[in-house]
Amino acid sequence: MSADRPILSKSPTESAVTMTEMVLPTHTNALGSIFGGVVMSWIDIAAAIAAGRHARKAVVTASVDALHFIAPIRLGHVVQIRAIVNFSARTSMEVGVRVDSENPLTGKMIHNVSAYTTFVAVDSHGKPTAIPKLVPKTTDEKRRFAAAEARRKSRVELAAHLKKN
Amino acid sequence: MSADRPILSKSPTESAVTMTEMVLPTHTNALGSIFGGVVMSWIDIAAAIAAGRHARKAVVTASVDALHFIAPIRLGHVVQIRAIVNFSARTSMEVGVRVDSENPLTGKMIHNVSAYTTFVAVDSHGKPTAIPKLVPKTTDEKRRFAAAEARRKSRVELAAHLKKN
Amino acid sequence: MSADRPILSKSPTESAVTMTEMVLPTHTNALGSIFGGVVMSWIDIAAAIAAGRHARKAVVTASVDALHFIAPIRLGHVVQIRAIVNFSARTSMEVGVRVDSENPLTGKMIHNVSAYTTFVAVDSHGKPTAIPKLVPKTTDEKRRFAAAEARRKSRVELAAHLKKN
Amino acid sequence: MSADRPILSKSPTESAVTMTEMVLPTHTNALGSIFGGVVMSWIDIAAAIAAGRHARKAVVTASVDALHFIAPIRLGHVVQIRAIVNFSARTSMEVGVRVDSENPLTGKMIHNVSAYTTFVAVDSHGKPTAIPKLVPKTTDEKRRFAAAEARRKSRVELAAHLKKN
Amino acid sequence: MSADRPILSKSPTESAVTMTEMVLPTHTNALGSIFGGVVMSWIDIAAAIAAGRHARKAVVTASVDALHFIAPIRLGHVVQIRAIVNFSARTSMEVGVRVDSENPLTGKMIHNVSAYTTFVAVDSHGKPTAIPKLVPKTTDEKRRFAAAEARRKSRVELAAHLKKN
Amino acid sequence: MSADRPILSKSPTESAVTMTEMVLPTHTNALGSIFGGVVMSWIDIAAAIAAGRHARKAVVTASVDALHFIAPIRLGHVVQIRAIVNFSARTSMEVGVRVDSENPLTGKMIHNVSAYTTFVAVDSHGKPTAIPKLVPKTTDEKRRFAAAEARRKSRVELAAHLKKN
Repeated sequence: MSADRPILSKSPTESAVTMTEMVLPTHTNALGSIFGGVVMSWIDIAAAIAAGRHARKAVVTASVDALHFIAPIRLGHVVQIRAIVNFSARTSMEVGVRVDSENPLTGKMIHNVSAYTTFVAVDSHGKPTAIPKLVPKTTDEKRRFAAAEARRKSRVELAAHLKKN
Repeated sequence: MSADRPILSKSPTESAVTMTEMVLPTHTNALGSIFGGVVMSWIDIAAAIAAGRHARKAVVTASVDALHFIAPIRLGHVVQIRAIVNFSARTSMEVGVRVDSENPLTGKMIHNVSAYTTFVAVDSHGKPTAIPKLVPKTTDEKRRFAAAEARRKSRVELAAHLKKN
Repeated sequence: MSADRPILSKSPTESAVTMTEMVLPTHTNALGSIFGGVVMSWIDIAAAIAAGRHARKAVVTASVDALHFIAPIRLGHVVQIRAIVNFSARTSMEVGVRVDSENPLTGKMIHNVSAYTTFVAVDSHGKPTAIPKLVPKTTDEKRRFAAAEARRKSRVELAAHLKKN
Repeated sequence: MSADRPILSKSPTESAVTMTEMVLPTHTNALGSIFGGVVMSWIDIAAAIAAGRHARKAVVTASVDALHFIAPIRLGHVVQIRAIVNFSARTSMEVGVRVDSENPLTGKMIHNVSAYTTFVAVDSHGKPTAIPKLVPKTTDEKRRFAAAEARRKSRVELAAHLKKN
Repeated sequence: MSADRPILSKSPTESAVTMTEMVLPTHTNALGSIFGGVVMSWIDIAAAIAAGRHARKAVVTASVDALHFIAPIRLGHVVQIRAIVNFSARTSMEVGVRVDSENPLTGKMIHNVSAYTTFVAVDSHGKPTAIPKLVPKTTDEKRRFAAAEARRKSRVELAAHLKKN
Repeated sequence: MSADRPILSKSPTESAVTMTEMVLPTHTNALGSIFGGVVMSWIDIAAAIAAGRHARKAVVTASVDALHFIAPIRLGHVVQIRAIVNFSARTSMEVGVRVDSENPLTGKMIHNVSAYTTFVAVDSHGKPTAIPKLVPKTTDEKRRFAAAEARRKSRVELAAHLKKN
C-alpha cells in the first residue's frame, strides 16, 4: 500500500478551520460597523481553506446560500470565523460557516453571521475532480450532513436553470 | 403638498445600478482568476447602492442567497455588476444582482455570477424603518416581484430559527 | 469578408463606460472626504476600460490633463465615473472622464471632478499599435473631437520636450 | 462581591489566539513568496488580540523582538498564526507568536516565523494601566514565563536608552 | 514679536519631499507593470505633503495637469517620487512632481512620470485660507516659478468655465 | 577591467533610504492612531530597499529586533522612515531603521519607532549569495558597525536554536 494513495474518507473535524480577525477602520462602512463585503471575503477564505483541507485539491467557490447577518460587527471587536465541511458529493462540498464577534473589553461574544457555501475541487485544467467522502461521526455532524444533502438538491436544480437562461 | 413629503412608491428602474470594474492582480487568487471574496464585495456594494436609492435611508445587508458562480472571471477582464430591487416589504428589500465579464480584446461577454441579497433600511438608532413600496411595471418586473416574495417567506423563517438557536 | 477583420471605425458611444462606487472609510483622507489619489485611480480605470473597448488592444495610460476637483466627495456618497473617447489618433486616444456624486439620503447629485486622459494601444511587445478611427456623430461628439484634437497638439509637444530633458 | 470586580489572574491559555490566513497574490513580493510586511501585520494583530484578551483593556504595541523568518511562505499556502501571553508585568505583557504554513495540496506544515512582542494596556487617555497577573500552569508555560522575564529586563533598559537619545 | 506669528515666506527647498516606494504585485496591472492609478495616488500624496509643509494648513487637491507617463515602471523596481512647490498664489500652490524608478539589481534609474498639481489650503470650515509667499532663490526655482504662474492663468480660466457648465 | 565587475565595497550612505508616508484612515487602528502592522510594513520595505541597494541582489527579510514603539503616530501626520545598512556579513546585512513623524500644522517632529532588521541576499534559486563589504567611514558609522556585529552573534545563535526545535 503506497504512502501516496489518496485518502478515501475524512470526518468533518479533520478539515475544520478557525480564523480570527480584528475589525480595523479599513473594514468599516460609513455607519461605523463592518462592511458586509469584508465579512463575505472572510467567510469565503475560511470556507475555501476547509474545503481545500478536505479535498487536498485546488478548490473554487461554487455558491453561497443562507448568508444571514444576525447582528452588526463593531469596530475594534475580535471576529471569529469557523468553517466546517457539512456534506460531500463526488466533486463538491457544502461548507458551513459561522461568524461570532467578541467585545475585547468584556469578552462577551455574540453570533453575527451564518452561511452555507459550496466549493468544487478542480484539477490543473479547471475541471471538477473527485474528493474524499465525508464521514460524519457525531449526532450533530450527521444532522448537518442530512440537512446539507437536502439543500444540495435544490441548489443543483437552480444552477442548471441559471445556465439555461 | 410639501417637497419633503416622502416618496410613497417607486419602480425597480428608478434605483437600478450598473458598476464596472477591471480585474487587477490584487483581486486574484492563487489560481489566477478572481478571488470569490472580491466578487462578493462588489455584489454587496452594488446591491447596497440600489437598496439605498430605493429607500433613501441608511441600509444594511441582511442576507445573501443563491449566489452562484457560473463561470470564473479572468485577470484583465472588465466586470459589470448590475443590481435591481426585486421586491419590497415594509422595511426590507430583495435586490437581485447579476455579474457579467467582458474579454477586453474581443468584447465577448459571459455571465459569471448571480445572487439575491436582502437589505434593511435603518434609522439613526439602527432600528428598521419604513421604505417606499416597490411597484413593478413590466412583465419581467412583476415575475421577479412574485418570485422574490416567495423566497422572502422561507428566508424570514430561517432567520427567526437562527435567532432562537 | 472575414468575421475576424478588424473594425475600422467606431462612435464614442460604442465604448462609453459608467462606473459606480460607494465611498467607504478606506477611501477617505484625514479630513473625512475622499482622498484625491482614490478618485484618480477610479478615473484611470474608467478611462482605461473605455480606451480598451475602443481599441480592443491592451492600453496604457500616457497622460492626464485638466483634472479639476470642483467639489469634495463625501463619505457614504455614491460616486459615478463616466468615461468617453473624445478623439483618436493612429495609436492613441483622448478619453474624457466626469465624476459626479450622489447623496444617498436625498438623491441630489453634484459634479465633482473632470479630467482628460490619453491612452496608447500597445502590442505584445509594448509597442504602440494602430486603433480604429473614432467617428463622432452628434454635435456634442464633434465639438469634443475638435477640442481634443487641439489639446493633443500641445500635449505631444510637451511629451517630446520632457523626453529630451 | 461585584460581578464587575476585575479578574486578578489568568493562565496563558485563557487568552491564546489562533489566526488562519490564505496567501493571495496581494500578499506577495516580486519574488512570489509572501511580503515580510504582511507577516508582520498578521503577527501584530494576533498578538494584539491575545494581549487584549488577557488585559480586557485597550492595548498598544510596545516592541517586537527576535522576529525570525526561518522559511519563506508560499502563494496559495494556508498560514496559521498562534499567539500566547508569555509574561505579564504591571501594565505590559510579552506575547510570543509562532507562524506555520500548510501546503494545501499535501497538508504538510512547516515552521516559518517566530517573534516576541510586547504590548501595554492603556486607559482612555492613553496612559499605561494595570492588567491581571499571568499565572503559568504547565511546565512549558513556566519556562516561557522565566525566559520572558529575562528578556524584559534588557528591553526596558534599551527603551529607556532610546528615549534619552 | 511672538513665536506664534505666521511665517510670511518660504523657499521651495523648505517644503520639498522625497518618497520612496517598492513596486509589489498589488500595485501592478494585468500587463505586469505598475497600474496608473497607483502612481497617481503616490503623486497626490507626495504633492499634498509638500503643499502642507509650505502652508502648515490642511490642503486639498485642486487639479492635476501635464501628468505624463514617459516610461513604464516595473514590478520589483524602487520608485522615487519628488515633489517641490513651484509657485504660490494667495491660497493655492502649484506643486511639481517627478517620478523616477531604479532597477534594484543594477542601480540604473530612469525618468517615468512628471506632473503639475495644484493644492488649496483650507481652514476648519473647508474655506480657502492664506498661505506663506513662495520665494524662489536659485535660477532654476525662478524659472519654475515663472512657468507655473503662466500655467495658473489658463487653469483658473478653465476651472471657472467648468463651474459655469 | 570590465564595467560589469562587481563592486567590492560600499559605504553606508551609498544605500541609505528615506521614505515619506502620510497617515490615512486606512492605516489606523480602532484607537485612531496608526496600526502597528502598517509601521512594520513600512519598516520592512525601507530596509529591503536599503539592503537591495547595498547588495544589488534580490534580498529577503531574515529577522527584526529591538523594534520599539516610543510614541504613537497620529492620523494626518507625515511619517519619515529612514533605513541605513549598519553591518555586512558574507551574505547578510543588518539594516537600522528609524521612524519619525511630523505634525503637518506645526512642523514639529517626534521620534516614534526604531528597529534593527537583517536581510539576506539570495540568488535565483533562493540560496544565500555573497554581497559587497560594508566600509563604515564616519565615527558614527563605525560605532553602529561594531554594535551591529555584536548583535549579530546572539541572533545567529538564536536562529540556529529555533531551527533545531
